[in-house]
Amino acid sequence: MADAKYDVLGIGNAIFDVLGQADEGFLVRHGMTKGGMALIDEARAAAIYKDMGPATEMSGGSAANTIVGTASFGARTAFIGKVRDDQIGGLYSHDIRAAGVAFATKAAAGGPATGCSYILVTPDGERTMNTYLGAAQELGPADIDENLVAASRIVYLEGYLWDPANAKQAFVKAATIAHGAGRQVALTLSDSFCVDRYRDEFLDLMRKRTVDLVFANEAELHALYQTSDFDTALTQLRADTKLGVVTRSEKGCVVASAERVVAVPAFPIEKLVDTTGAGDLFAAGFLFGLVRNAGHEAAGRLGALAAAEVIQHIGARPQVSLKELAGQHGLPV
Amino acid sequence: MADAKYDVLGIGNAIFDVLGQADEGFLVRHGMTKGGMALIDEARAAAIYKDMGPATEMSGGSAANTIVGTASFGARTAFIGKVRDDQIGGLYSHDIRAAGVAFATKAAAGGPATGCSYILVTPDGERTMNTYLGAAQELGPADIDENLVAASRIVYLEGYLWDPANAKQAFVKAATIAHGAGRQVALTLSDSFCVDRYRDEFLDLMRKRTVDLVFANEAELHALYQTSDFDTALTQLRADTKLGVVTRSEKGCVVASAERVVAVPAFPIEKLVDTTGAGDLFAAGFLFGLVRNAGHEAAGRLGALAAAEVIQHIGARPQVSLKELAGQHGLPV
Repeated sequence: MADAKYDVLGIGNAIFDVLGQADEGFLVRHGMTKGGMALIDEARAAAIYKDMGPATEMSGGSAANTIVGTASFGARTAFIGKVRDDQIGGLYSHDIRAAGVAFATKAAAGGPATGCSYILVTPDGERTMNTYLGAAQELGPADIDENLVAASRIVYLEGYLWDPANAKQAFVKAATIAHGAGRQVALTLSDSFCVDRYRDEFLDLMRKRTVDLVFANEAELHALYQTSDFDTALTQLRADTKLGVVTRSEKGCVVASAERVVAVPAFPIEKLVDTTGAGDLFAAGFLFGLVRNAGHEAAGRLGALAAAEVIQHIGARPQVSLKELAGQHGLPV
Repeated sequence: MADAKYDVLGIGNAIFDVLGQADEGFLVRHGMTKGGMALIDEARAAAIYKDMGPATEMSGGSAANTIVGTASFGARTAFIGKVRDDQIGGLYSHDIRAAGVAFATKAAAGGPATGCSYILVTPDGERTMNTYLGAAQELGPADIDENLVAASRIVYLEGYLWDPANAKQAFVKAATIAHGAGRQVALTLSDSFCVDRYRDEFLDLMRKRTVDLVFANEAELHALYQTSDFDTALTQLRADTKLGVVTRSEKGCVVASAERVVAVPAFPIEKLVDTTGAGDLFAAGFLFGLVRNAGHEAAGRLGALAAAEVIQHIGARPQVSLKELAGQHGLPV
């Protein structure tokens, strides 16, 4: 196996976040499921946006947020995702490159605009996402650079890639190349509704060992195994994947392999502002821990630290150097 | 004088803010004057942006920030400013309308893109702005809606309007209509370098009573009268304008009329994050105080409160309801 040029390569929907505050009534009025990610078309995007308050914009996208977080810890990273060659695509491309992430996916020259997620943050800090995939729908197998995948120690893929029609082919292509090159493949289940849409396919990916490592939060885990019992679900997860990492909000996380289960507490926070990116940044820290061979417990602590940083401000990307933050807390860097 | 439909109408450059963190070395490397606003062309904008770290985007523009702040206190407000009919212009128009501000200026259908300011926030919280005016340059007298101006109790204009060629004509037209309708005209000097560029014209506006109320910070006041002595400058200000309000950062502000000078302390803050919008939001609170006939001291306190809110987070627009915040502090709402 050749030396890896990158520690982690992320593949996901390139989505620009439009974040605004909203009360519970707004969610009800628009028929939104609080805490979830709903796919919306252009007309619904326009209707929601028209009714939204003033917003803050930031680049987002689940896997992209994770990769930016991993880069902030100091890892060598790359990203594959599709924007259009429009103004928002320009902002998106700038941000991910400025974060130190190699990003060379060709922007679409026509078709839908760069994808946007209209994110409503309620007073309790919970975020409800409404995503217009836009140009992200155009991601396909041709965008998967074989050399890039083969040169990356871990390929990290988001479950959301099952939504755009061609992206799942890109996903499978990337996983196949990665395993052919002796690399690891990680998957995040993304969202419990996403799991509901693609349960059988996700289980198939796990059981056929197309993926080696699975990230899920409790809701996603319960949705995957259609059980409300955590231990039952965890037992099944351990049977289905080499390594499963389950985040449990303020209860911390559980890292589960066939051999053992390690529980890691959450990091204390001063004030929950916006949960957007919590899971993404947890994955960032955990992946960084794996890259540094830090062990599961330390990896979990790195994940918890990154998640704690991101939920204390608006937006899903870190506002400080996670490398410095980890250093300040005596964690591996 | 007919009843006013609006309490405050703002006229200014419609500018989208691209905010990123930078160290002092970045400013030096790019030849930037810390704390100032420099006008840049498209090529320099591209060069700065390419070198900037990941950014957060928010609608901005000095007078627009003030108007949004005044609206957040509960005043009836309107704004005149020019964007293009591009994606960023769409975000801009959404944000100001979503803040409850009437905004009907026709977007440019051609010409330069919507204006952007590349704002570097250094670790000390100071912001350094690099503004590409873009479509804001297209603002002209034709954009000044006579009925709107005549229906607004206070017309608030930014000194930055002296930069785009046609906007100063728009400024004078608005001031003339306002006075013809018995309304008040307020001016912010905007920036000490802006004062250096247009000192004589600004003094002329004041001495000819084209403007009734002038906002300045200390640096702008000293630049206006080319003196380093505060008291000398203040004495001249009192001679030149009916009402002058000078902000002095953590020293609070001074409200000066021919009759008297009132000093109002700054509001205590927990942590300075980003000074972007401090002066704009001070003006928002002060104007709201005038609208409510709250007296100069209370107006100064409202200004100090709004400034304190905005400097404790990234971006130049309030993140909470200033009406609620004022109520919590026992200030007039």
